[in-house]
Amino acid sequence: MQFLSDNAAAVHPAVWTAMQAADEADAPYDHDSLSRTLDAAFADLFGRDCAALWVASGTAANCLALATLVEPHGGVLCHEEAHIEMDEGGAPGFFLHGAKLMPLPGARGKITPEAIAARRAQVREGVHQVHPHAISITQASEVGCVYRPEEVAAIASAAQAGPGRRLGLHMDGARFANAVAFLGGAPGACLAGVDALSFGFIKNGAMSAEAIVLFDPAAADLARFRRKRAGHLQSKGRFLAAQILAMLKGDLWLANARAANAAAAELGAAAKDRLLHPVEANEVFIACTHDERQALRGAGFAFYDWGDGAARMVTAWDARAQHVAALARALAAL
Amino acid sequence: MQFLSDNAAAVHPAVWTAMQAADEADAPYDHDSLSRTLDAAFADLFGRDCAALWVASGTAANCLALATLVEPHGGVLCHEEAHIEMDEGGAPGFFLHGAKLMPLPGARGKITPEAIAARRAQVREGVHQVHPHAISITQASEVGCVYRPEEVAAIASAAQAGPGRRLGLHMDGARFANAVAFLGGAPGACLAGVDALSFGFIKNGAMSAEAIVLFDPAAADLARFRRKRAGHLQSKGRFLAAQILAMLKGDLWLANARAANAAAAELGAAAKDRLLHPVEANEVFIACTHDERQALRGAGFAFYDWGDGAARMVTAWDARAQHVAALARALAAL
Amino acid sequence: MQFLSDNAAAVHPAVWTAMQAADEADAPYDHDSLSRTLDAAFADLFGRDCAALWVASGTAANCLALATLVEPHGGVLCHEEAHIEMDEGGAPGFFLHGAKLMPLPGARGKITPEAIAARRAQVREGVHQVHPHAISITQASEVGCVYRPEEVAAIASAAQAGPGRRLGLHMDGARFANAVAFLGGAPGACLAGVDALSFGFIKNGAMSAEAIVLFDPAAADLARFRRKRAGHLQSKGRFLAAQILAMLKGDLWLANARAANAAAAELGAAAKDRLLHPVEANEVFIACTHDERQALRGAGFAFYDWGDGAARMVTAWDARAQHVAALARALAAL
Amino acid sequence: MQFLSDNAAAVHPAVWTAMQAADEADAPYDHDSLSRTLDAAFADLFGRDCAALWVASGTAANCLALATLVEPHGGVLCHEEAHIEMDEGGAPGFFLHGAKLMPLPGARGKITPEAIAARRAQVREGVHQVHPHAISITQASEVGCVYRPEEVAAIASAAQAGPGRRLGLHMDGARFANAVAFLGGAPGACLAGVDALSFGFIKNGAMSAEAIVLFDPAAADLARFRRKRAGHLQSKGRFLAAQILAMLKGDLWLANARAANAAAAELGAAAKDRLLHPVEANEVFIACTHDERQALRGAGFAFYDWGDGAARMVTAWDARAQHVAALARALAAL
Repeated sequence: MQFLSDNAAAVHPAVWTAMQAADEADAPYDHDSLSRTLDAAFADLFGRDCAALWVASGTAANCLALATLVEPHGGVLCHEEAHIEMDEGGAPGFFLHGAKLMPLPGARGKITPEAIAARRAQVREGVHQVHPHAISITQASEVGCVYRPEEVAAIASAAQAGPGRRLGLHMDGARFANAVAFLGGAPGACLAGVDALSFGFIKNGAMSAEAIVLFDPAAADLARFRRKRAGHLQSKGRFLAAQILAMLKGDLWLANARAANAAAAELGAAAKDRLLHPVEANEVFIACTHDERQALRGAGFAFYDWGDGAARMVTAWDARAQHVAALARALAAL
Repeated sequence: MQFLSDNAAAVHPAVWTAMQAADEADAPYDHDSLSRTLDAAFADLFGRDCAALWVASGTAANCLALATLVEPHGGVLCHEEAHIEMDEGGAPGFFLHGAKLMPLPGARGKITPEAIAARRAQVREGVHQVHPHAISITQASEVGCVYRPEEVAAIASAAQAGPGRRLGLHMDGARFANAVAFLGGAPGACLAGVDALSFGFIKNGAMSAEAIVLFDPAAADLARFRRKRAGHLQSKGRFLAAQILAMLKGDLWLANARAANAAAAELGAAAKDRLLHPVEANEVFIACTHDERQALRGAGFAFYDWGDGAARMVTAWDARAQHVAALARALAAL
Repeated sequence: MQFLSDNAAAVHPAVWTAMQAADEADAPYDHDSLSRTLDAAFADLFGRDCAALWVASGTAANCLALATLVEPHGGVLCHEEAHIEMDEGGAPGFFLHGAKLMPLPGARGKITPEAIAARRAQVREGVHQVHPHAISITQASEVGCVYRPEEVAAIASAAQAGPGRRLGLHMDGARFANAVAFLGGAPGACLAGVDALSFGFIKNGAMSAEAIVLFDPAAADLARFRRKRAGHLQSKGRFLAAQILAMLKGDLWLANARAANAAAAELGAAAKDRLLHPVEANEVFIACTHDERQALRGAGFAFYDWGDGAARMVTAWDARAQHVAALARALAAL
Repeated sequence: MQFLSDNAAAVHPAVWTAMQAADEADAPYDHDSLSRTLDAAFADLFGRDCAALWVASGTAANCLALATLVEPHGGVLCHEEAHIEMDEGGAPGFFLHGAKLMPLPGARGKITPEAIAARRAQVREGVHQVHPHAISITQASEVGCVYRPEEVAAIASAAQAGPGRRLGLHMDGARFANAVAFLGGAPGACLAGVDALSFGFIKNGAMSAEAIVLFDPAAADLARFRRKRAGHLQSKGRFLAAQILAMLKGDLWLANARAANAAAAELGAAAKDRLLHPVEANEVFIACTHDERQALRGAGFAFYDWGDGAARMVTAWDARAQHVAALARALAAL
């Protein structure tokens, strides 16, 4: 019974169907009939102009999005546990040509305007220190918590205020679907002031396609050149577009996220006295001893330790009801 | 009737089957049971130790392979029409951190030990000029011609001889299968002295998986770090491994390449008085006037102009016999 | 009798005096009272607004200037013999984060609007090829020839015309002084449409200071950050500013260049039947056999071979009249 | 009365003399007769083989030294207040092609084997996190404290022990002279296990020359290529070599450092109840209120605030006895 991660879950049947429907040879790269509809599909979804590019990993999505906002001599303010800081093997340093990540503390894996202002205040004027060019926030956060629309808006205000240059605002939405599901399902609800979104589909039922959504159309041209330059412009791009379009169709992305969130909520309710963080998306962090973890593993549950006295369980779109129920019972019984 | 390129052809049914068989969630990234067999599968194929990594594009394969051979201050000797020089949007500059491509002329899209030696002789000693660190050859070449085993061996000797450092030898094998099919089917026949091979599958029946094959196992560790850092370590890597394994199984890669080559040969025979290059793989380059091209297009054939007085036709593994026959007739009748 | 290069010539006494006058401790970096006058000094000289930064080498000047005009995924059109292409050890690849140099042929070491247009026409639309972002011209050229004002203006027009983006225009002025001296001494005469100038002083009497002159003040901020980031912001920058100001004072830079040019002209006149290029600045290229070169060396003259059948002689600001006269005699007598 | 920094102090007369003696034209770059003696001069000083390269700034020295130890996908363990982390404008990100700085806490601006081990233990195996490739320590530290030989040796042991690869060890010796003076004057005393040293001269009486000293001769070739590529190979390099040789001659570097240290010690003794750190080199950090700082400035002393309740005074080789005595009196009287 697998609760390790959502990142290796199965592919949704509707995605398979869409990929197979795309098999007929079409124009290569992103010139095919599917890829060419992506901009409009996301503009529709968000109710505003945007450009959308597929890529094959969240790391590529984050880094190519940031590359539209950050010059090589700049920096990126982000949470100290952010994926770009902790889990991308130095990819931001590569894609941004040596730009500096500037980690901030923050409860629930979230950063605040206050933390941003405090860090900016530490940067001396002049050229001796790296100045931030952008802010990156993770929605849902690395500990499964969700920025409320007003929190994002406040960060966007901080980004646009001084001192110094207007900062770009990037959202790492590897679990954007889970966040939107938690917030009630309005796709654009938490995007005010966001310049670039990494919209994750792979953890949520796709196979190998994430979307970079750029709300500044001028950035799209840059991102397209950089995608090719990074070897991320696949020649049979139609298969990536097909995945994304299948996920958007009939709001499958939301339905899948709701299923994952519901499973996590069930676990969270069962372990409510042990929760390290509120369960808002599809991740559950609980205090539990080494012996308790051993017992759970002995009972057939797979999950990650989270430091010495804690564990992380992650649910996916395809969580099996009986597995979830079994783990909930086991957690309640600890 | 499509003869534009092999890069957007359909996916072979066996590849689909293998991908679907891999749908069951497994360990993420390259920890799954399929990815873990790749090293052995290629070692089997080539009869020598090697490491094999999947990536999603030929550009990524070429550049990550070269990154194991070239330091940022070095250069890469390659044909002036090489894909890395002409068609990868500057990706080598990105992946190699500013290393320099050093283009060489050469008939048939191939370079020679003499051209290599001549170029090396131009590089002054000392630090004022970029020194080559590696050679990259394309098999089959950009104009569909094939390096014979002794030609590769001679280049490998040139790489290992001085002056200066031993050069690494990379083979861009986007159409390696077509080349091996032409050479008689012994996979290792043209690899003596090659350090790193980009083994292409996407043009030959796969969807989104190429292999980087490294004959120096010490380079594999480096390539794995760099792949992650470039956003090319997909979380559901099992689907890429499945594609490659399906292509290797029962030598599907060779069968597909033979089919594409046979179609090209049929076209080449029909247009034998117009051929600009011998037809050795799956590309046919012919002299033909603007009016002739118009006529062919009017008859329903799609292909690229190749400068002012020429055209390129490319066949793929799924070339339809009646389309090929029709084009052959049309070419013969020009 | 040294005619190898002007790059290691002695330092002019006025430069020594100015450096020593700057010895008193002052604010560090470029906050000292001398560095702060540079912008105004060059604005005065050129009669237009500009920003000026000192750096310690022509390579740094060229590459930092180009970094204000070229994004990492772009390219630089330049002559195939340009210093940035041939003699800077790959520095452009480093400073421009992998941007591509795009060499052009051209008589007299100069490029033309026609060559620029022809090269741009070869770049396919889309992301598969590197597009130029800037043009770099060398004044005087690598073979000692000078762009006339109307030639620069025509290139600037080409830079601003399409297809595609407006290109930046950089002038590598390692021997800008010699070019201006040849053109009659009006400093801004050949700068119409130039965005960034590397103004060389080191070959012309300074010790270790070149100026980057940026005619787009917005670029100055970028260049200042990049200079620091490249380790080129010296803490005792006042000594570099002092050198440059001493060279500007009373047009010492022009007087020195005229002296060097006059010496070269004397040599050129003596060897007029052997000249490979007109002698316009301070370099003389002559056809001469191996035996003739041996004879000249036997007579005490040091210079470089220029391929098999030619030689290059360079004169500096401190050329000694009797050495020049002796070489002129020797050349005439060959 | 200037106690802001040692980085803009005057140039020592012996350095001026040596520079002027080098004025006669010589071979360019580092082929001149002075530059060619540097390796031997430092080998003599340290009693072991080494290579030595001049560069014009401490930032360049640090980053080029680190570039011999760190690959682009690696990291550098350093103190969280280290110059490379705080004050080099992102230069390490540039020179190391995006490698990651991994800051550590530590009393007195120094890091310990324990902190190194703790940080290494946090790095998960595999490619998802950046692994350190090198350690950089600052001698004397950013707060003027000195690593004892046994402290350096313990760090070197930590560098060579696992887990994972042997780490390179770099010493940022911008104030190496002050540290050696404090330790008793044996130049090699604190260098056991150090691979690369940035040996600072500019703060200590030179104008524009620091030395990169590499104890692995194989690294020298790499550093020479990278220096050129970074625009740091000056054409009149003889003037940098002259500065360094003048500083080494008769141990002028030690004499100057002793003078600066003595001045700082005098201040430290006067303010001994306010010291935030022991005064071991030429920097004095004292607790003092805003009003006290105002009073000192009113009395004519220039120095930096160090956060809200502290100040930093720095002494240089040319500290004037009466200024030092005056400040000592003022501090004692606070």
